[in-house]
Amino acid sequence: MSSQVAIETLSPAEIVVEHEKLSAKYTELKTRGLSLDLTRGKPAPAQLDLSNALLGLPGDGDFTDAGTDTRNYGGTAGLPGLRAIFAELLNVPVAQLLAGNNASLEIMHDLIVFALLHGTPDSERPWSKEPVVKFLAPTPGYDRHFAITESFGIEMIPVPLGHDGPDMDVVRALVAADPAIKGIWTVPTYANPSGAVYSEEVTRALVEMETAAPDFRIFWDNAYAVHTLVENGAPALDILGFAAEAGHPNRPLILASTSKITFAGAGVSFFGASAENIAWYTTHYSKKSIGPDKVNQLRHLRFFSDADGVRAHMAKHRAILAPKFDLVLSILDERLAGAGVATWTRPEGGYFISLDVVPGTAKRVVELAKEAGIALTGAGSAYPYGNDPLNTNIRLAPSFPSIEDVAASMDGVATCVLLAAVEARL
Amino acid sequence: MSSQVAIETLSPAEIVVEHEKLSAKYTELKTRGLSLDLTRGKPAPAQLDLSNALLGLPGDGDFTDAGTDTRNYGGTAGLPGLRAIFAELLNVPVAQLLAGNNASLEIMHDLIVFALLHGTPDSERPWSKEPVVKFLAPTPGYDRHFAITESFGIEMIPVPLGHDGPDMDVVRALVAADPAIKGIWTVPTYANPSGAVYSEEVTRALVEMETAAPDFRIFWDNAYAVHTLVENGAPALDILGFAAEAGHPNRPLILASTSKITFAGAGVSFFGASAENIAWYTTHYSKKSIGPDKVNQLRHLRFFSDADGVRAHMAKHRAILAPKFDLVLSILDERLAGAGVATWTRPEGGYFISLDVVPGTAKRVVELAKEAGIALTGAGSAYPYGNDPLNTNIRLAPSFPSIEDVAASMDGVATCVLLAAVEARL
Repeated sequence: MSSQVAIETLSPAEIVVEHEKLSAKYTELKTRGLSLDLTRGKPAPAQLDLSNALLGLPGDGDFTDAGTDTRNYGGTAGLPGLRAIFAELLNVPVAQLLAGNNASLEIMHDLIVFALLHGTPDSERPWSKEPVVKFLAPTPGYDRHFAITESFGIEMIPVPLGHDGPDMDVVRALVAADPAIKGIWTVPTYANPSGAVYSEEVTRALVEMETAAPDFRIFWDNAYAVHTLVENGAPALDILGFAAEAGHPNRPLILASTSKITFAGAGVSFFGASAENIAWYTTHYSKKSIGPDKVNQLRHLRFFSDADGVRAHMAKHRAILAPKFDLVLSILDERLAGAGVATWTRPEGGYFISLDVVPGTAKRVVELAKEAGIALTGAGSAYPYGNDPLNTNIRLAPSFPSIEDVAASMDGVATCVLLAAVEARL
Repeated sequence: MSSQVAIETLSPAEIVVEHEKLSAKYTELKTRGLSLDLTRGKPAPAQLDLSNALLGLPGDGDFTDAGTDTRNYGGTAGLPGLRAIFAELLNVPVAQLLAGNNASLEIMHDLIVFALLHGTPDSERPWSKEPVVKFLAPTPGYDRHFAITESFGIEMIPVPLGHDGPDMDVVRALVAADPAIKGIWTVPTYANPSGAVYSEEVTRALVEMETAAPDFRIFWDNAYAVHTLVENGAPALDILGFAAEAGHPNRPLILASTSKITFAGAGVSFFGASAENIAWYTTHYSKKSIGPDKVNQLRHLRFFSDADGVRAHMAKHRAILAPKFDLVLSILDERLAGAGVATWTRPEGGYFISLDVVPGTAKRVVELAKEAGIALTGAGSAYPYGNDPLNTNIRLAPSFPSIEDVAASMDGVATCVLLAAVEARL
């Protein structure tokens, strides 16, 4: 537990004293000349090293799988052997799971482009012909999702994200009333940045709910499906099965990748959906490519062999990541719990911890940290248009720095959170 | 030379006799039970084998270049070392050349998507907000180009392609008069399928001409820039320099890839343009990807080392491809030259020979060949909307089959061309 006293209980005179103490501490922090970065959810070099065998795979002379010459053109669906492994992990029938290039973000972007320019199988017209298109954005959420919709002028409506998914009463009311709402962004397992895990109840509610738009889509970005920090990770729910049962088979669009399993820049992406959506996507995809990089897919197939190979590999990531998360949490507990100036999530997987500081001070905390040589993700980045209405949320990404740097950064961040909280009381 | 007599000189009675002879020959062809494919410009396995060292590269432990960890996220421009090699080969300043994933087709598609949804730096509004958008399509041309524009409802206007580029009088008149014409598709070196090589005169004319549209773009798909079949290949012209001189720096969009240099499905694509266009593309690209597969770029860098490495590698392709092209031409000469029923190109590079049969018979030739087990690209495929108004053009792709299969296919094709020509005289 913390040795701090609760800031809100301090008298004005005590606040002045506390401000002096923290200012001195902050001045000392600045003298350390730190240059630390907690901004992006990048794997650490030690994590990338776990996959270095890929650099020599598949090896000269090995280029076929199930009769396919992976070196040549063709095969828009991707390599069946690799698709089978991730079909099991993602709980998607292999016939409905495509393997792509190195970025699932690209597939999400293309899905929206195809919907804008061609319309989905359930659309009355291309989305670009609608007077306005809106998306629900559970917040805090993933900035790169929001950047895609923002870039196309799709209006985002924030909805509160709880520990088990978005507030479904809010979601249901919005989508039932407004046919302009065409989709929702989700990160269902160990959400970026809160670590939320969508429950089966929420998942079923999302596919069952009545939507005014006949072509409503759930962007189910299961980026952290196998990225558990605990012994028994959250299972990948059968959202396609639930959706088919509910009579809305085309609603979910499932995305995933090996970006944080193998190499962040050189992995394989996956897209799962109903047979009708897969056919629709493939029609438009085949205009832009003769097929994905199948040699890289073969490389991954040789590296993993099967789904258990992926699970065993993820246990090695966990051994590197869990101590960093534990350290962040212990420093937050030690430095901030007693001061009553912040709350934070305790994720069981994924890449982030979501920190809520005193409302109105998040930007100041990021600014103080920056001046002390600690780069934090911009305050508000987890909200559509970068607009955190309470100016309270900060995303912490402890994966990339060394454990020593995580310690130094978080100790500095704690000082900045406290100083900003006291400044707000001055 | 051919032993054939010119079909057009035959009397009606002689035509009947000739038809009987050719029908017998064709019946004999069908009994051979062939299953041959001259449809797509795919490298042969022996060509892919030339790059098999890539399958083991860069090798465990080798993952950095110029301080960049290629395994991690980042670097939207691609790996500088590899860009430098292709900057030299494509005659583009390295700062204005990006390296991407495995398909330049994808970049062309995205360029059009970004123009449709955002507009180019010179557009008054996004192209999707224009009442109509048109592209010039030099014909015969590349079917996958035409498929992209067709899929977005962009109207294509065919213009005749000569041996040194499109008919510039036609092009100039069209683009000067109609602001809806926003672009032109080109394959400037060893064009698909005619083998045309754009001259410096035509190239300068394309960048100098006045266009009614301020945001006119030349899609300069230099897919076969280094794919020569002769000792001294055509040089890559400095179209960006010409365009800047002419005061239209943003007009050319240069595309290329290693699809037919290394692995057709697992190569590296390139995009070159003015600094303003590169910044524009990068802004929109960075919404869909955190960067291309840099490990594959490092793999290619290690494989080639420098531009001379690419040139030496292309000489090996030439040693495999040139005999196939020579064989096709010798069979066409032997079987068809004297009959006066066809003309064909004699390309000095690229992947195709363009065959013009008796007008009105191309579809029949393809049908006859199919029934005899020889797959040819659909007649008309080199024309927008698959519509060859004269029904005369057939694209021959001799790269993929073995030399024995090329011989058997072309002998069969010659029989089909003659039979269709005689049928037309019956």
